[in-house]
Formats: sequence, structure tokens, C-alpha cells
Amino acid sequence: MDRVYIERILKAVKQGKLTPGQAVRELAHCYESLGFAKVDVGRELRTGVAEAVLCEGKTGEQVVAIARAVHKRSGRLLATRASRETYEAVKRALPKAVYNEAARLIVVGGRRTKGRGRIAVVTGGTSDIPVAEEAAATCEFMGNRVERIYDVGVAGIHRLFGHLDDLKQASVVVVVAGMEGALASVVSGLVSVPVVGVPTSVGYGASFKGLASLLGMLNSCAPGVTVVNIDNGFGAGVAASLINQKR
Amino acid sequence: MDRVYIERILKAVKQGKLTPGQAVRELAHCYESLGFAKVDVGRELRTGVAEAVLCEGKTGEQVVAIARAVHKRSGRLLATRASRETYEAVKRALPKAVYNEAARLIVVGGRRTKGRGRIAVVTGGTSDIPVAEEAAATCEFMGNRVERIYDVGVAGIHRLFGHLDDLKQASVVVVVAGMEGALASVVSGLVSVPVVGVPTSVGYGASFKGLASLLGMLNSCAPGVTVVNIDNGFGAGVAASLINQKR
Amino acid sequence: MDRVYIERILKAVKQGKLTPGQAVRELAHCYESLGFAKVDVGRELRTGVAEAVLCEGKTGEQVVAIARAVHKRSGRLLATRASRETYEAVKRALPKAVYNEAARLIVVGGRRTKGRGRIAVVTGGTSDIPVAEEAAATCEFMGNRVERIYDVGVAGIHRLFGHLDDLKQASVVVVVAGMEGALASVVSGLVSVPVVGVPTSVGYGASFKGLASLLGMLNSCAPGVTVVNIDNGFGAGVAASLINQKR
Amino acid sequence: MDRVYIERILKAVKQGKLTPGQAVRELAHCYESLGFAKVDVGRELRTGVAEAVLCEGKTGEQVVAIARAVHKRSGRLLATRASRETYEAVKRALPKAVYNEAARLIVVGGRRTKGRGRIAVVTGGTSDIPVAEEAAATCEFMGNRVERIYDVGVAGIHRLFGHLDDLKQASVVVVVAGMEGALASVVSGLVSVPVVGVPTSVGYGASFKGLASLLGMLNSCAPGVTVVNIDNGFGAGVAASLINQKR
Amino acid sequence: MDRVYIERILKAVKQGKLTPGQAVRELAHCYESLGFAKVDVGRELRTGVAEAVLCEGKTGEQVVAIARAVHKRSGRLLATRASRETYEAVKRALPKAVYNEAARLIVVGGRRTKGRGRIAVVTGGTSDIPVAEEAAATCEFMGNRVERIYDVGVAGIHRLFGHLDDLKQASVVVVVAGMEGALASVVSGLVSVPVVGVPTSVGYGASFKGLASLLGMLNSCAPGVTVVNIDNGFGAGVAASLINQKR
Amino acid sequence: MDRVYIERILKAVKQGKLTPGQAVRELAHCYESLGFAKVDVGRELRTGVAEAVLCEGKTGEQVVAIARAVHKRSGRLLATRASRETYEAVKRALPKAVYNEAARLIVVGGRRTKGRGRIAVVTGGTSDIPVAEEAAATCEFMGNRVERIYDVGVAGIHRLFGHLDDLKQASVVVVVAGMEGALASVVSGLVSVPVVGVPTSVGYGASFKGLASLLGMLNSCAPGVTVVNIDNGFGAGVAASLINQKR
Amino acid sequence: MDRVYIERILKAVKQGKLTPGQAVRELAHCYESLGFAKVDVGRELRTGVAEAVLCEGKTGEQVVAIARAVHKRSGRLLATRASRETYEAVKRALPKAVYNEAARLIVVGGRRTKGRGRIAVVTGGTSDIPVAEEAAATCEFMGNRVERIYDVGVAGIHRLFGHLDDLKQASVVVVVAGMEGALASVVSGLVSVPVVGVPTSVGYGASFKGLASLLGMLNSCAPGVTVVNIDNGFGAGVAASLINQKR
Amino acid sequence: MDRVYIERILKAVKQGKLTPGQAVRELAHCYESLGFAKVDVGRELRTGVAEAVLCEGKTGEQVVAIARAVHKRSGRLLATRASRETYEAVKRALPKAVYNEAARLIVVGGRRTKGRGRIAVVTGGTSDIPVAEEAAATCEFMGNRVERIYDVGVAGIHRLFGHLDDLKQASVVVVVAGMEGALASVVSGLVSVPVVGVPTSVGYGASFKGLASLLGMLNSCAPGVTVVNIDNGFGAGVAASLINQKR
Repeated sequence: MDRVYIERILKAVKQGKLTPGQAVRELAHCYESLGFAKVDVGRELRTGVAEAVLCEGKTGEQVVAIARAVHKRSGRLLATRASRETYEAVKRALPKAVYNEAARLIVVGGRRTKGRGRIAVVTGGTSDIPVAEEAAATCEFMGNRVERIYDVGVAGIHRLFGHLDDLKQASVVVVVAGMEGALASVVSGLVSVPVVGVPTSVGYGASFKGLASLLGMLNSCAPGVTVVNIDNGFGAGVAASLINQKR
Repeated sequence: MDRVYIERILKAVKQGKLTPGQAVRELAHCYESLGFAKVDVGRELRTGVAEAVLCEGKTGEQVVAIARAVHKRSGRLLATRASRETYEAVKRALPKAVYNEAARLIVVGGRRTKGRGRIAVVTGGTSDIPVAEEAAATCEFMGNRVERIYDVGVAGIHRLFGHLDDLKQASVVVVVAGMEGALASVVSGLVSVPVVGVPTSVGYGASFKGLASLLGMLNSCAPGVTVVNIDNGFGAGVAASLINQKR
Repeated sequence: MDRVYIERILKAVKQGKLTPGQAVRELAHCYESLGFAKVDVGRELRTGVAEAVLCEGKTGEQVVAIARAVHKRSGRLLATRASRETYEAVKRALPKAVYNEAARLIVVGGRRTKGRGRIAVVTGGTSDIPVAEEAAATCEFMGNRVERIYDVGVAGIHRLFGHLDDLKQASVVVVVAGMEGALASVVSGLVSVPVVGVPTSVGYGASFKGLASLLGMLNSCAPGVTVVNIDNGFGAGVAASLINQKR
Repeated sequence: MDRVYIERILKAVKQGKLTPGQAVRELAHCYESLGFAKVDVGRELRTGVAEAVLCEGKTGEQVVAIARAVHKRSGRLLATRASRETYEAVKRALPKAVYNEAARLIVVGGRRTKGRGRIAVVTGGTSDIPVAEEAAATCEFMGNRVERIYDVGVAGIHRLFGHLDDLKQASVVVVVAGMEGALASVVSGLVSVPVVGVPTSVGYGASFKGLASLLGMLNSCAPGVTVVNIDNGFGAGVAASLINQKR
Repeated sequence: MDRVYIERILKAVKQGKLTPGQAVRELAHCYESLGFAKVDVGRELRTGVAEAVLCEGKTGEQVVAIARAVHKRSGRLLATRASRETYEAVKRALPKAVYNEAARLIVVGGRRTKGRGRIAVVTGGTSDIPVAEEAAATCEFMGNRVERIYDVGVAGIHRLFGHLDDLKQASVVVVVAGMEGALASVVSGLVSVPVVGVPTSVGYGASFKGLASLLGMLNSCAPGVTVVNIDNGFGAGVAASLINQKR
Repeated sequence: MDRVYIERILKAVKQGKLTPGQAVRELAHCYESLGFAKVDVGRELRTGVAEAVLCEGKTGEQVVAIARAVHKRSGRLLATRASRETYEAVKRALPKAVYNEAARLIVVGGRRTKGRGRIAVVTGGTSDIPVAEEAAATCEFMGNRVERIYDVGVAGIHRLFGHLDDLKQASVVVVVAGMEGALASVVSGLVSVPVVGVPTSVGYGASFKGLASLLGMLNSCAPGVTVVNIDNGFGAGVAASLINQKR
Repeated sequence: MDRVYIERILKAVKQGKLTPGQAVRELAHCYESLGFAKVDVGRELRTGVAEAVLCEGKTGEQVVAIARAVHKRSGRLLATRASRETYEAVKRALPKAVYNEAARLIVVGGRRTKGRGRIAVVTGGTSDIPVAEEAAATCEFMGNRVERIYDVGVAGIHRLFGHLDDLKQASVVVVVAGMEGALASVVSGLVSVPVVGVPTSVGYGASFKGLASLLGMLNSCAPGVTVVNIDNGFGAGVAASLINQKR
Repeated sequence: MDRVYIERILKAVKQGKLTPGQAVRELAHCYESLGFAKVDVGRELRTGVAEAVLCEGKTGEQVVAIARAVHKRSGRLLATRASRETYEAVKRALPKAVYNEAARLIVVGGRRTKGRGRIAVVTGGTSDIPVAEEAAATCEFMGNRVERIYDVGVAGIHRLFGHLDDLKQASVVVVVAGMEGALASVVSGLVSVPVVGVPTSVGYGASFKGLASLLGMLNSCAPGVTVVNIDNGFGAGVAASLINQKR
């Protein structure tokens, strides 16, 4: 979506050939073609969420090219599941890039606070923290304040009760838990706000790489829990942000 | 939660033995024991959602007893997955009970509008309507206005585009779809509000009773989709209501 | 194991041909052949658990013949997963037979109290009660006192805390729960005695007939939980009895 | 299928001992034995598809020996799932061999255009390109013209609509997509030609290495979609070629 | 898509306000709303396949209403997975409706031969015939000639070879097989045309309701096989028709 | 394979146009077409096993027609998974038909003893007997002597040891067991003959309809166990017969 | 749980502000926050089991910090699934740490014998020993005497019978077995004490990383077997300890 | 089973204290304890199959110790799934050890021909050869003659027909095939001897590491196929040997 294109749209608005609404729609439905990729440059206008770059499964060159295109348009960037090598390649192209190693995120810009409320990100154990950090950093990138409450799994449930007031003041709660994923049900029975569950692949044997936790959260006996894919901290962060910034 | 108990709490507040906040907390954490069941009479205070009665797996007598207890306290009732037989038993006990046959819900006194926005409930096909009705009626019971957009699956995607404006004006979208569940991804790529996916067991063969749709929604390439259990219209309705009524 | 056989063993003991220990071992390893079945008449001596009759998958005649053989030897009977029709057939043969409809058990002469402690049987919901009753009645048949604590699932966890003292006084806790099965983890984090989890097939959709609950309990983040087959109240009752009656 | 054998067949035809039809059938059903392998030298006559060499699971020597045998007969070669090491070994034996790294294909002599129409190969994302390239290069090897339309997944469905005319002019469409695989259904609802879906293992967590996408495509709500194995770009290319070259 | 609407489109064409191409596109993207359903009246123009009515999961009234709408527009109807009861309801509304009991299809009109070639429909066993008939009748409804070759499974593979000439003269082969589904691979190794596999749920035990056959066909060692959902004779018929009628 | 056809073959042998070996081969590869079915009349010559009729999934008329064709040729019949209704239909056509209700088999003329050794058929429990009877009756139909050893599961392993001598004298052992299927491993560790395991669907919950037993037998720690499909007594009987009658 | 906090509690007891029982409860429900982790310092008081540190999924620094916190309070430590690298990091912080390489455990202190009886730990094969050692060492850490009986799988069942007396004298038996897991059923049929089964991931192919053994044990035909997660020697050790130390 | 022990048994026979039969039984049920392992030295006497050493999951020292014990008794050794490192360790202890790299077997002294007939080992493709070699070498170690027929999969079924005479002359056929495993069914329909199927993990995607082939073989439409675990060439070799050497 280069400058020329935008100027043409704006000129059309000025000339009355396009109404402002038509112009927004036009901008929301265009994309920039890189040959191997079509960067969805209108996604933020259309869905409220800028296109993030999923690094896994892409070559370093592909990531850098997409990252440049996204950054050129918006001055910002969120790239997920990035290895250190990928980060270093992006860093050379975009020197302001910052790497969140725990969350495996590359971020440029970020933190333009928009949300009114606060999003609580809760984990069952210490091993769930990388996924939780992906969620938390995504929320922050999308402009929300985040409260981290880590290692409060149900094996010692008094640790959760010690943070009940923090929980009750959140607008949305993201619960990140592996193994049996019971924490999502327990939290959802205690708060009156939406709970987004993120099953993690923490565990072994019959956890089947997160399946146990996923099924546990889907079958939560406390209604109101919704669930994202295993280890999908990014998706949970987006969902929580959309909820927190609800019109 | 009989009258005596409440009066005792209120008296304690009056006498300064309990602060109002303590009283609310006390009320939120009590329950009424029926022997075989412990009706969670404080759930609405605590979680914003009154206890609904899941009829499946309970005998008729059990449902009636729990329904009476819930209704006595609140003058309202939502019972899910109710057969006509169960409804008739409840009707004898609670003559104001109304049966929503498509959604298999029993309702007493709903519709106290609280939500500001509107919840869109969308289905892929005609066969998904019973689950969608469960979601829609739950939303209405919890005080939300609902826009029904049915049979707009991706095999004829122009049907969806014909309702794009309705979709874009919703505060939350509930997408109910069986088979491959692709509709959730498509909708989520078009709107800037939270999307709650409900996979349904509509299909046969390799749909594995909704597994295909569940996995499809969990792997949505459009971030921001969250998912509830297969055929769980009630849970989606609760989640959408909590989102719509977010503080 | 007819009288003649036993008398022959006893005579051998008297004559010094068998030591008492040898005689016990001999008795423990014999069985009575009915042609289609070989009733393991020494099982109680050998394993502490009399042979129970699983009615499912057997014809009415087969159940009656095995029931007679078991009862003739011991004056007692426990038959599981019995339909009312099977019960009526057994009743004609063994008039003292009593039917526990909720638990689908046929019992003749139980309750010879042996256990010192008390076994708590806990359920997540009302729909889990049939399985819990199978466990509880098995425990009672094997001579244990049982404390029933029903409908204390984690969606309203304060209901569980209302029974914490009862729980803490038990020698063993059997936790019966469907859906996500989270209750086993929560209970196990609160008590210092063995917890036996029984996943139930209560639920729908992605509960996959109890699989979600089974996986949840197997992946419990609280160590010390052991698990039996889905809906296997009988097996949990036997395990709890063996634990409670440990030498 | 050495020269002597072919000459014997041809002589028999000349002498009227074999009709031309019988000779084709004879040639179509012979093979060349390498001891560890039996190269199906008649496959192209019989099925329209020359034998391709699947490199995975074979030693380098085995691949080279089979490649030589195939090439000797036809002057051409297609070897799939080839590592660079395997390619280098083949290159030493067959200097004209060319390596398509993205698609992991080794090709000698392709592109004898036979198909009238054009095959469109479409991907949902950038990470699906290696599988798509395997399909596209197979189609080209088999003589078809290919139109590549990459990164048009349903999260930004306007990108697809931007290529609708290209799609509508194709004779067959191959849709390559991971995650939920929704793109196959959407495309199939828009075009009037056969659609071959290739689920890819792109994704994580509950994608279960392509299972989600596979099930999604199998349950497509748009009839007319057929599906090949996960990541099987080669198979999709063959199927599309057979369709495009249909008598 | 009532008459008024069509006349308006046609008038616009006449007046030069719409090009003929624009008119076709307009017609192809409209639908008729029945409230609970949106009949995709342009599907045949758009995808070459008229909308068929899947009866399963719909009430009798819903089927009749949709059937009327489809028939009103085109004078034809194909309804799948129809019980005899549903047929009788449709028959009252559309007296020309004919019921194919084996295939569970309701047909009105049909057989306007368009395809040049012939589609062979092959089954492994006798029990696969209902699914094969669904495929064959769909092909015929869509205007193709069909050759039925039933009960030629690989346990007695000479039965297949007895029909090799019929097979080789087909333009497309649909292979319908349960159990291990091996027939698809064997056929595909013998013919030079596209093979569409339909796994069926025939079998028991580890066939897991068609999963074994589905996986077998997806893993076919003979390239060129594509697969549809278990028991999806209709889908296979549509795919085969599209292939046979390829431009 | 009517008389005329056979006479023609025999005449050709007499005239020296066919060698006896060629005639056998010719007869072995023909079949009789019934339209919906192709009765593999040469199967016994070819594979040593006459074609048995699987009744499940066929209509009564289809079974009767196939049964007649099989019987006409050989004077014998084995039909499996037959309901009483099917039996009665067959009985009308073939009055000598006998019904083995437990095994759900229809038999005409069996028991031409051919095998030298004896086949032991062993079950873990009483509920496994129907499958065991299918295996045993198939063995007997194919001319073998059978030793039945029922209800000797590993929960009371001394019952098995009581039959060790019978086991050791068998030429082949068929082990039929549900639940965990452990009996196959134990037996295989005790005897020096082939062991064929038949997992049964006896069990509930995490037996997943025989999957647990199937996996247990496939993973037997005692080498030499081979396995057939869940509940496939017929297949085990055929395999055991082929082993016992090995040249 | 620093000294100051404990002194405050004790002072309150002394002053009569807390009863001793209240003080125990208070201590049992506190935890020590490390930021990323909340060490459940009261777990031993509450559940009889000190918090063990699961090393997998934690960084070396995290393990060391938690280990220090646990050790400071109790002078003891049990860390599971520890690599040698992790051990060396812990060793630097806690020089008394000892590494059990087979069991992958780090232990400080341990062996304060409390249990009266003896726990037998039994394996099917040599490859199951690492998991068995984890169980055995956990039992010993928790104060129990352990009898190891290794490599007595059912393929040579006389090896088990050679240890029958040892088995019969145990208070609890832990059975560790991969492949089909049959050993648990066989042992449970021979002893009159609780049996805890630990399926292991030993095996290949259709063992599906321990699933076969897990299902086998869950479906044990001998009642009284309870099961823990695949490879969960630690959990089995805790469960066996709780059973052996039952009040 | 050291010399002293054997001499004691033999002396007892000589003195008439043991009959020869009792002595065989005694020898068959003893084992040699290595502490971590109990070598089943009587297995060959008891089951006809000497104990083979499964190397996977054992340390090098454990393999060497067991190999020494087995070899000391019998002068022979078969060790399966051995890496080259393990082989080298064994070689140092037993210099006559020979390594079959393709089959990953270590052999000392094999080939004492006992079987009368010949065992055919057949593969679908070249990639199945390692598993086939494990089966073939096991058969040879156990004294059987083996006919190898490789790469005759059903994609070019004429390759199989080219070896029909070899197949028909075998006493047992072992069919080794990955992907869809169809070869087992086809072979079983052509021969009159037992067929043992070995599914392999050759394939990708929806082969799910051999599951597709396993299910395919279990559901074979040709009765008489029995199946062993995925990639279990050793088990198939043992089973085929036992069948071939049947009394």
C-alpha cells in the first residue's frame, strides 16, 4: 500500500468521487503483493488487528521482506514464533526491532495504550510462562495494560485465592495452563468477566502435547470459558484485546 | 439461600458487623443443599451468570427440584438440553415455564435488557440452527439484543457478504458451523470484534461428530477467534453476553 | 469349591499332609467350572476381593448361574452393571437379592464393617451420582464406612470448601467427575490421603465420552492422584477398600 | 525393459503374432528388476503417469540406481522429497538433473506441453509454498501450464477475490492450505471446475500435523472438492494433470 | 430469485446498463432467503453444480420449503440422505419427485446428458452399493453416462481384471470401498484417468466407521487418487461430473 | 460356475487343449455374476478357503441369492454375522441350513475333518464367548478339531494353568479377549505354537470398543502373537485353519 | 515462608490469638513468591507431600531458585526429570545434592523412614527401569522401604512367580510396564494389596508412546488397579507412599 | 542356568527322582538373574523361540551382559534394533557377532535349517526393505529357508503377478508394506497359505507413522491375514517360523 495509492484514494475523497466510508472500505480491502506473499495491509482497518508475521515455516528472507512491508506502512511490527536467528535478520533490516526471548516475539513500536480496562494473564505453572508472555506482550502491543499472575495452579489453590482481588478487577482474564488445564474452570467460577483459555503443551505422556489441557478447557463446567489453540498465546492476546477494546 | 439467611446477613450489615462488600462476598459464596445437589445460589453475584440447569444426565425429579430452588431465589430459570418430557415436569412445578423446542431450552422470565451492543449469531447451514438458537436464546435470557443471520456458509460466500453491514455493527459475533467450520475464519477476517466459534456435530463420516469443525476453528488463520465445545450454544451465549456486558 | 473338596483339604491339614499355609494357598488357587465360566472361588482369599459379577455382556442365565455359585460359597453377592431384568432373574434364584437402581448393583448380604477409616466419595455434579453410588455401594459391601459429598464441582468451588473438614477426615477420597475432571486435582491439593479419580462419561462433544475427564485426571498437577477406567465406580470402590483396609 | 525385449515385441507385431494393441498391453505390464526394486517401466503407457521416484526412505545408492533405470528408458526423471545430498548423488549419475530446492524435486527433462487448459495452484499462506511448488512442478513436468496464486488465505479473503478471474479461467484448481484448510471450500464455491485440496502440515498444536486441515477439506460444505494426503503436492499434481489432460 | 428480479437484470442488459457478463455474475451471486435458509440459486451458474438439498439434520418442513424453492427456479431437484418419510413429504409438494431408495436420493428431472465420456462407478463389495448408487445417480442427474461395476474387491482380484476393458474406456473412475479400501490403489495403477475414491463405513472393529478405508485411500501408493469424505457418494458424483464435463 | 462351464473346461483337458494345471488355474479364477455381486466361486481352489458370506450390510435378498450360488456349487455354506431374520430367509431357500445363535453363523454341511492337529480356542471371560464361538465354528466348518477353553483370564491366572496341558497339545491357539487383552501375551509365553489373538469389544470406557485390547495384543511382549480385527472370530478361524492344515 | 512470618504465627499461638490448629492451617496455606514462581511451602503440612520440582520446561536458573527456596525451608529437596546440566547447576547452589542418573532425580536429604510396610516396585522389562527407579527413589525419599523386582514381564511369567512371596509381603505394589502393560492385571490377580500401575513409553509402532500400555492398565480385568500418567514414576511413588503411610 | 544347575537336574533324572518330562519342564521354567534383568533361559524349550534381545531402550552394558548370558547358554544370539555402537560393544564381548545393518540385527550362529517349507517375504516398496530384512533374517536364524520378493506393490500389480509361482510355493507369506498396506489383501486373495502382514511406518502425513497400513491390514477383505505391530519384522519372523515348523 504505497504512498501513491493512498494519495490517489485521498484525492478521490477530496474530489467527492469517494465518500469517506468508501475510502475506508477501499483501504481495508487492499493488499501489497510481494510475489510469494500478499501483505494484508488493510487488516487493522478491517479487523482492528494489524497483520502479525508468523515466522515459523517461513525462510529468513521471507520474514524480512514481509516485516519491511508491514513496518513501512505502519511504523510498527509484531512477529511471532521467531528464533534468535530470525530476529537478527530482522534487526539488520529494522534496527529498532526488540526481541522478547521468552515469548519469541519481535516487536517494533507497540504500547499505544487504548484499552480502558486491564487484562489479567494467569498461568498454572512456571513452564507455562513463555506462552503467557506471548499473550501478555501481544496485549501490550495492542495497547492494553496487563497484570501478570503466574504459577497459581490448582495443586495449591490458595495461591490463586491470594490474587483474587487482582483477578476480580480485570476486564478479561487469559488463563494459560498445561497438564489438565483445570485452572480455567476454577478461575471462570470466580470472576464475572470473559475468560480466554490457552492450553499449553506442558506435560508429558497422556498430555499428548496439550490435548489433555485443550479438552479440559473445552469441557469446562464453568460456562463462559472460550479456548484458543494449544500454545497460541498470540491468538489469546488478540482475542483479549478485542474484548477489552470493545466499543 | 433462604430468607432467614439473607435477613441475618442484612442485619449484620445494618449493625456494622459486616461491610456491604463483605456481605456481597458472603452471599456470593453460599449455596443451597438439596442433598443430591448443591445449588450455587451466589453464582450470579459472583460470576455475572445465574446457574443454568443442564438437564441431560439428570432425572426428571432432580431437574424439577433444582429448577424450583433456582426459581425461588431469582424468579427466573434457564434449563438447557431439556426434552419435552422434562419440560412438562418443570411446567407442572413452574407454570410460567416456556419451552423453546428448537433450542431445547426451558425459560422462565428472561429478557431484562442489559447489554448495550448487539450480538450477531451466524450459522453456516440450516442444520446448525438448533445450536444457534440455544446460543441466541441464552444471550436474550441474559439481557442482550440478538441479530440472527442464518445459512450463510462459505459454499456460497456471497450470502455472507449480503449481511456484512449487520455483522460489522455487532459487538460480538457467534459463529455456529459444522462440517469444516470455515465460516469462523472468514467472518473473523472481516470484522473488528470478538468472534466466538461454536463447532457443531452436523456432518458425517470424517466430521467425527464435530471434531473436524472444532479443529478447524481452533486452527483459524484469522487471529481473535475463540472456541467453545461442540454443540455448546449455551456456553457461547454466556461468553458472548459477558463480552457484550463488559464493564 | 464344593464341600467335599474343602473337607478333603481340611482332613489333609489335620493329618499333617498339608500345613495350614499350604491349605490356604490350595484354596486360594482353585475355581469352580460352570462350563462357560470358571468361578474364581479363591479370589477373596487371594486378593482380598470376592469375585464380583459383571452383568454386561452376559445372558441372564449366565449371570444367574454364576451368581448362584458365588453365593453358595460365601452367602454374599455383588453384581455390577445389572439391568432391572437381570435383577429380577437373580431375585428368583436368590430371594435376598437387593437392587440399587442408581448404581445398577445387585447385592446380597453386604456390610460387614472391616475398615477403620472412612472413605469419602465426592462428585463434581449431580449427573455423576450413578457412578459415585456404584463406588460407594462397593465400598460398603466390602465393609467400609462411606461419606458422600455430592455436587461440589469447581465451577462453584466454595461448595467444596464447605466440606473441607469432612474431606480431611477421610482415609481415602474417591473423586467422581465428568467434563474436565478438574475436581480430582483440586481435592488432591487439599488433602494428605490417597485420591482415586473416576472420570465419568458425563458431558458431550469434545468430552468424547469421558476421554477429556480421563486425560485431565491422568495429567493432574497434584501428585498422588491415581485413576481408574471411565465410569468404573466398582473398580474405584475396590481400590479404595484395599487402601482403607491396608494391613 | 532392455532393447532386446522391445525388439522382440516389435518383431512379433511385424510378424502378425501380436496386434499393436496386444503389444502395447505387453509393454505396459513389464518391469525392470534391480534386485531391491522393480522399476515399473510400463507405468506411463498404462496409467499416463511415468514412475516418479520417492526419495524418502531410500538410500542414496537405491535412488541413483532407480533414477538411472527410469532415465535410460525415457530420457526423463522426476524424483520427489529429495534432499540436497540425494540430488548431488543423482547429479553425478545424470548431469542434466536440476534441483528445485523449495519443492525438493529432482527433474530431468520436463515440460513437453500436452494439456490444453491451465492448472491454478493456490496457497493459503507463504508457509504452504513448498508443497505448492511440488504440485506445480509436477504439473509442469507432466506438460501442463500452471498459474501460481499464493498467499490468498481466508483471513483476508479480498486477496482471493483479487484473483477471481485467474481462478475462473483455470481448468483445474489445486488448493494448498494448512491450519483449518478453509480455502478449499471457499474456492470450490466460486468456480465450476474440479478442485483438488492438499492439506499441509503447516500449523501447530491442535493442527496435529495437518489433520485439522485434512478433516476440514474432507468435510468441505462445497461439493466437488477431492483431497490428497497431507503435504502430498506430487499426488495433487498428478491428479490435476490427469484431469487437465482428460480425453 | 423470482421472475421480477430476473426481468430487471435482463432489462438492464438490454438497456446496456449491464454487459451480459455482468448479468451472469449478478445472477450467479444472488440467493433466495427463506428466513431459516438462503437458497443459493446462482450456484449452478457459478460452480456448474445446482444446489442439492442435504436432508439429514433438517426438519421435514425445512426440506420441503428448500426443495420447492430449488425446483421453482430450475424445474429440477436433487435431495440427498432422504428418509422415506422425507420423500413422502416432498412428494406431496412436488408430485414428480422420484425416490431412489438404495441411494436415499429424491430426484426431480435429471438426465440431461452433457458429458462426452462415461464415468465408471466401481465397488469393492455388495455392502458398498448404497454409497455407489448415490454417486452414480448424482452423475446421471448431472448429465453423465455411468457404467456400474460392482463387487470386484481385491480379495478376488480376477473379478476386477474381468472388467478391465470397461474400466479403461471410462473418462473418470469412482472407486467405492470400505474395509481397507485397497481397491482404489489397484484401480489407479491400471488406468490412465482420474480416480476418485469414496471410503465407506462398511466394516467393523478397527475399521472405525470408515477411518481405515479413508486412510488407506489417502495413502494410496498409486498417485492420482483423490478422496472424498466417508460415505460421500454425492460429493464423488459431483467431482466426477465436473471432471467429465471439463471444458 | 455352472455345469456347462465346468464341462467345457473338462472337455478341453480331455482333448489336450488344457493341461490339468491350466484347468485348475482357469477354474480358480472365475466367478459367477449375480449383477449386484460376483460370487468368487474359485476361491477355495485358489486360497483354500471357500467364500463365506458376510451378512451385515447386505439385504436379506442379497444374502439368499449369494448363499444359493455358493451352495449350488459346493453343497456347503458358511454365512457370518447373520441375524435370526436372515437365517430364516436362508432356511427357506436352503432347508439344511443350521443356525449357531451364539456365533451368529449359518452353516450348511461342515465338518469334513482335514486338519491333523487340534486348534485350541481360549477366552478371557464369559462375554468373549460369542466371538470365540464364531472362531471355533469356522475352524470346525473348515475341517479342524477344536478344544474350547473358556473364561481363563489373567485376573485368576491359575485357571489358565489348570489347562496348560490342553494348551500345549494344540497345534495353534486362538486367544479371544477383551478389556486389556493380556491373555494373548501370557499364553504365547507358555506354548511353542502359533498364537492368533482376537481382541473383542467387551469392556467400556477407555476400552474404546476393543481398541485397548487390540493395541495390547499388537504390543505383546511375547513374540509370535499375530492379531486379527476386533471381534473377527471368523478371520481368526480361517487363519488358524490355514496354519493347522499347512502342507 | 521466612522466619519472621513463622515467628509471628508462633507468637500469635502463644498469645492465644490463634489456636494451634489455626496456626497449622495458616502455615499450610501460605506460599513464597519468587516472581516467576510461587513455592507452595505449606504443601507438606497440607497434603503430606513436600513440593517436588519438575525440571522439564524450566530454565536452569528457575530450577535453582525454586530448589533453594524449597531447601531453605525444609533442608530437603526432590527434583524430577533433571538433566545432568540441571543437576550441576543445582549442585553449585546446594552442594549436598545427589544425582540419581537412571531416575533423573536430584535429591537432598531424604530417607527419614516413616512407613511401616514395604512398597514393591515391579517392572516388566529392563527398559522400564528408569521409570521404576523414579518411583522407587520417590518412595524412599518419602520415608518408605522399597523392594525392587525387575524384569518379570508376562512373556516368561514364571519369573514373576519366583518372586510371589516378596510380592505378597508388600503393602502396596507399583507395577511399571510398557508394551501391552499386562503385568498390572496379572499382579493384581495375585495379591491382596493396592496395585498402582505406571504405563511406560517403552515400545514402538502401535504402542503409540505408551498409549497401549495405559489403555491396557485402565481396562485391567482385575479390579483394584489404579493408574497414573505414562512414565510418571514420581506420581506413582507419591501415591504409593500416601497409601503406605495411611493413618 | 549354569552348569551346576543343569548337572543337578540331570543327576536327578538319572536317579529316578525326576522323570525326563519333569526335567524338561524344570529347565523350561528357570531363568538367570542379572540383577537388572532376568534372562529367560528356558524360553526356547518352552516356546520354541530363544530369547532375543531388544536393544532399544537398554544401555550398551545391559545389552552386552544379556547377550553374554544368552550366548553362554546356547552358543547363539539374536539381538534386534541394534545400533552400530551397540554392535561394536557386543562384538568386543562376542567376537563372532555379525551385524546385518539393513535389518539392524546382531547375529551369532544362526542357520540351523529346521523348517521343511519356505517362507516368502514380500514388500510393497524399496523403503520397506529394512523391516523385511529383519523378518527374513529372523526366519533364517530360526532355521527356515526364505524367498525374498521385493518391490511388488499394488501400484504396478503386474510385478506381483510375475512372482505368483514363487508365492504359491511358499508355506507362509510375510507381507511387509507401508502406505495403505493393500498388498496383504491382494496376496491373501491369491494364495492358500497363512499370510502374516507387517505394516511399516513408511509414508507421511495421514499414514500417521504406520497407522494407515496397520488399519488397512486389520480390515483386510481377504480372510486369513493376521497382523503384527508396525515395523515389527522380528515378530513376523517368529510367527512365520512357528507356522512353518508346526508339528
